[in-house]
Amino acid sequence: MKVGYYSCRKCGGILQVDYDYQRLSERQKPRMVKKKGIGIWKYKEFLPIQDYSKMISLHEGGTKLLRCKRLGRRLGIEKLYVKDETTNPTGSFKDRPISVAVTKAKEFSAKTMVSASSGNAGASLSAYAAKAGIECWIFAPAGVPQEKTCQMRVHGSKLVIINGTYSDAFKLARTCAEELGWFNVTSTFCNPYTVEGDKTVGYEILEQLHYDAPDWVLIPVGAGPLLVGSWRGFMEMKRLGWVNRSPSMVGVQAEGCSPIVKAFKVGRSTVEPWGNPRTVVSAIADPLQGYPQDGTLTLNTIRKSNGLAEACSDYEILQAVKWLAETEGIFAEPAGAAPIAALDKLTGEGKLEKKDVVVCVVTGSGLKDPTASMKICGETFKIEPSIAELEELLKLLRKGNS
Amino acid sequence: MKVGYYSCRKCGGILQVDYDYQRLSERQKPRMVKKKGIGIWKYKEFLPIQDYSKMISLHEGGTKLLRCKRLGRRLGIEKLYVKDETTNPTGSFKDRPISVAVTKAKEFSAKTMVSASSGNAGASLSAYAAKAGIECWIFAPAGVPQEKTCQMRVHGSKLVIINGTYSDAFKLARTCAEELGWFNVTSTFCNPYTVEGDKTVGYEILEQLHYDAPDWVLIPVGAGPLLVGSWRGFMEMKRLGWVNRSPSMVGVQAEGCSPIVKAFKVGRSTVEPWGNPRTVVSAIADPLQGYPQDGTLTLNTIRKSNGLAEACSDYEILQAVKWLAETEGIFAEPAGAAPIAALDKLTGEGKLEKKDVVVCVVTGSGLKDPTASMKICGETFKIEPSIAELEELLKLLRKGNS
Repeated sequence: MKVGYYSCRKCGGILQVDYDYQRLSERQKPRMVKKKGIGIWKYKEFLPIQDYSKMISLHEGGTKLLRCKRLGRRLGIEKLYVKDETTNPTGSFKDRPISVAVTKAKEFSAKTMVSASSGNAGASLSAYAAKAGIECWIFAPAGVPQEKTCQMRVHGSKLVIINGTYSDAFKLARTCAEELGWFNVTSTFCNPYTVEGDKTVGYEILEQLHYDAPDWVLIPVGAGPLLVGSWRGFMEMKRLGWVNRSPSMVGVQAEGCSPIVKAFKVGRSTVEPWGNPRTVVSAIADPLQGYPQDGTLTLNTIRKSNGLAEACSDYEILQAVKWLAETEGIFAEPAGAAPIAALDKLTGEGKLEKKDVVVCVVTGSGLKDPTASMKICGETFKIEPSIAELEELLKLLRKGNS
Repeated sequence: MKVGYYSCRKCGGILQVDYDYQRLSERQKPRMVKKKGIGIWKYKEFLPIQDYSKMISLHEGGTKLLRCKRLGRRLGIEKLYVKDETTNPTGSFKDRPISVAVTKAKEFSAKTMVSASSGNAGASLSAYAAKAGIECWIFAPAGVPQEKTCQMRVHGSKLVIINGTYSDAFKLARTCAEELGWFNVTSTFCNPYTVEGDKTVGYEILEQLHYDAPDWVLIPVGAGPLLVGSWRGFMEMKRLGWVNRSPSMVGVQAEGCSPIVKAFKVGRSTVEPWGNPRTVVSAIADPLQGYPQDGTLTLNTIRKSNGLAEACSDYEILQAVKWLAETEGIFAEPAGAAPIAALDKLTGEGKLEKKDVVVCVVTGSGLKDPTASMKICGETFKIEPSIAELEELLKLLRKGNS
């Protein structure tokens, strides 16, 4: 791919990177990978980079796979794991695809990068662009949480709020790539290198489970590059013979913007754009207007994996933020907790069973969008600094509880 | 120590934990520690825990020591490192002392924990209390950034805003420990176990530099437990013979609340409380009213290490937030960037030299207090989703730059 190619020149379809798997299988072994420390670049032979000297890394990936016993008990799942992406350098999984794409931008000697973003990708790209010393423009829809716009601005990106949805920002980024020659790092499927970074979530989950694949992997999806990328990671490991089987993928959306779930549930073969997103779960509010084929790719991936798609209400998702925070000490942004909400629903319906091994990918930190979650949290008390006032408060609370 | 002892029963002085160093030196070796993966609990033999089955961990510590070449060039330091505490589970170094203290609370079978906090310790304690299933109260002064109060509330702590300064909150927490028997986890010096967690920053820096101690370590200080704890870590490693020398410690405060720096600069042997804190750097705005001996312990530690103390203005500190974000892709909260501001000042005065090996401990994530930093960031643009409007904006910006 040259800078400027973001779809197939023949059919207009989505570009994907291919590898010499024969060679990979001869040269790479699980034991070797295990010894290489942590982070996405331990898998560098599986990533589409020619010149490693151009690598732009902030030590992304290598996140923990946490066994969540307390939350598992509440949800009725014996072996529940959280892949905790909240501790990535900029607080979300996006650091994986962005690290690969910005490294590629360095290889291409790109002068200016651009990304449409609902927040996390733009925050991440801004940090990596700073490290790389490349000029960067972010197009975001109105309503991006302030914490994320702060990240973009502090790293020196030009932040442009677009009067429209994510899809409008997406189209403008595409036009800038075409007409101004900017390197488009929008981390859906238009830049094929970003999905390659997402793959590493799949690799890491398998390594952390000692190459014994889980039964289910639940992932929040807007267009779905993380789900497709992780699945690609699982498939590659199977192709190399490192695992015998692969998990079923569950795509999770917010009810107020769930084009993929809708297509899945009515049994359609393609995804249709969503009219008007209405949800506080901004990180996955992608209506896919103008590029519904991205959603179809995700839908097909879910089906190939014998997976499921589920939508949850904003209330259910915020409730899941609270469960995760109160039982496991993990603070996720709403999108990040969406898999927990879906898991509760699916176990309730008997679609997932108690003995299944389940991984929920918690994609972003609660610090990136704390306001929404506060609606369901306990109140704050205010007192003078005196033990008498505190004891008064204790009495009041005890009364309230009795 | 039993629950309820927070100072010496004889002299009223600060309690410290002691170890059998002879035994430690026989049983522990650098090579063994290196093999044990990452995180503070790899050093468990150096921590004051009897029953490891009680361990409450969210995988704190094991943070990166980043070589910062671009920022180093700007500041005129060839070997500049950032100890990046922003990627801890709750976004600050406080997860280290809190993990140790909550584990201790479990050992003591504490029913209720309390902490005075300017934000980070309370956020951290709330997460660990949730994981441990222990009730938790946080006393915070007004003006704690919203992101931090969100963390406390989402994890289910009772958050009480105290009409006063951090010192007023501190005193109320102490009273609750005395009168209600709550376990006081205020992470200054009143609970001796917390400082033990801070030690691990010192251990990790030395391990990451292959036991070749740096010349300088710069740390933001309120009361100063992280500086004292890190120093304790360096001293222990020297005592065990793992290093030959120890670094000079630099304590950094904001000009608007700098009792320790003031005592250092006028050559006093004790620290006096500060009247009225006036700074946006809230995480280190501790006036030490009622416990100036905590500041004196930090002052003495700085002097023992042949170190320095420096105060910077809010503007200088916010500027440092921007430098760090724009050159290295690291977004720190203001307190976290204070060492960078001080480093700039001290190299300007010739107190630190180009060839010195310097470590700045960046204590907390910018996502925990983004608002302050935005004052010095570039503006946000708003346009309709059209390439024509974007080109108009580009023209305007070019004009502005020429």
